Amino acid sequence: MKYCTQCGGDLEWKVPAGDNMHRYVCTNCGFIHYQNPRIIVGCLPVWEEHRILLCKRAIEPRHGLWTLPSGFMENGETAEQGSMRETREEANASVTIQSLHTVFSIPHINQVYLLFRAELDNLDFYPGPESLEVRLFKQDEIPWDEIAFNSVRFSLQRFFEDLGTGNTASHTHVSSFQEQPG
Amino acid sequence: MKYCTQCGGDLEWKVPAGDNMHRYVCTNCGFIHYQNPRIIVGCLPVWEEHRILLCKRAIEPRHGLWTLPSGFMENGETAEQGSMRETREEANASVTIQSLHTVFSIPHINQVYLLFRAELDNLDFYPGPESLEVRLFKQDEIPWDEIAFNSVRFSLQRFFEDLGTGNTASHTHVSSFQEQPG
Repeated sequence: MKYCTQCGGDLEWKVPAGDNMHRYVCTNCGFIHYQNPRIIVGCLPVWEEHRILLCKRAIEPRHGLWTLPSGFMENGETAEQGSMRETREEANASVTIQSLHTVFSIPHINQVYLLFRAELDNLDFYPGPESLEVRLFKQDEIPWDEIAFNSVRFSLQRFFEDLGTGNTASHTHVSSFQEQPG
Repeated sequence: MKYCTQCGGDLEWKVPAGDNMHRYVCTNCGFIHYQNPRIIVGCLPVWEEHRILLCKRAIEPRHGLWTLPSGFMENGETAEQGSMRETREEANASVTIQSLHTVFSIPHINQVYLLFRAELDNLDFYPGPESLEVRLFKQDEIPWDEIAFNSVRFSLQRFFEDLGTGNTASHTHVSSFQEQPG
């Protein structure tokens, strides 16, 4: 960031009066450009209570690896609406949201995943433009070595553990720098 | 938004190639300025399992009304760290996070609340600069007519209901235009 979105003036990286963090502040009009974490919304689309829909990525990063349908939450939508939209865009799949499943913070890239447990409405799904392939997996079929993101691996692990225990509470996790990004 | 943060060029409100939503796009360098919902993180600070800490707001909006300690999540922190930071800033209170309690989407102002159930570590708390007063409330002491935000009212209602049922799952809610903002 170099220029003010309001007046085009030069930005300075400094702590504004009354604040305790560095922000981009306009040297001309004083406008403060706050930057905040972004939300990734997505689903664990479930069929017959034990099979999960995954998408093989057609885009970078992690082209060719498997992920849960998910993406950046947009203005004007709820977390649940965003999760359903991403599932429709990436897998042309229709789901009914059941409950929040995973909250996964990744502070070094300023992201928070909100993943919802959802029921697939039917088996009429096929790859969207960002997916090479879309299919259902049972637990022993999950390609654990080809999962695109740690957040997705974490969520899948908790899902299959919960199948055994009947737990329905949500799971929170904090990613660390030591882990593979995402 | 009028000017590009990267080159200072004029911005245009249009649908970029390959996208399906309007964005601010630079007419000079083509940079796309995405805008996404922001996260409000906060706590339900609990003492002796049934008393909740609330803060009386010293700032607008809703000056003089009561709220749970909460505020915008910052880059570089987890949702849990942000919740603890806000609780320290607004109430000088130290807490131990227990679990996610509320996810509350407010799509018309592009916000998502993430509120955590937390245990107060001790009774050594006092108002920060954004609070006029900080105190503990039992259920029958809650000033329901003087609660600052619907998200806070929703979360408090669910908390006291759960006291009776023993439920520990998290609660999600979508605010509508018909409700009072927040």
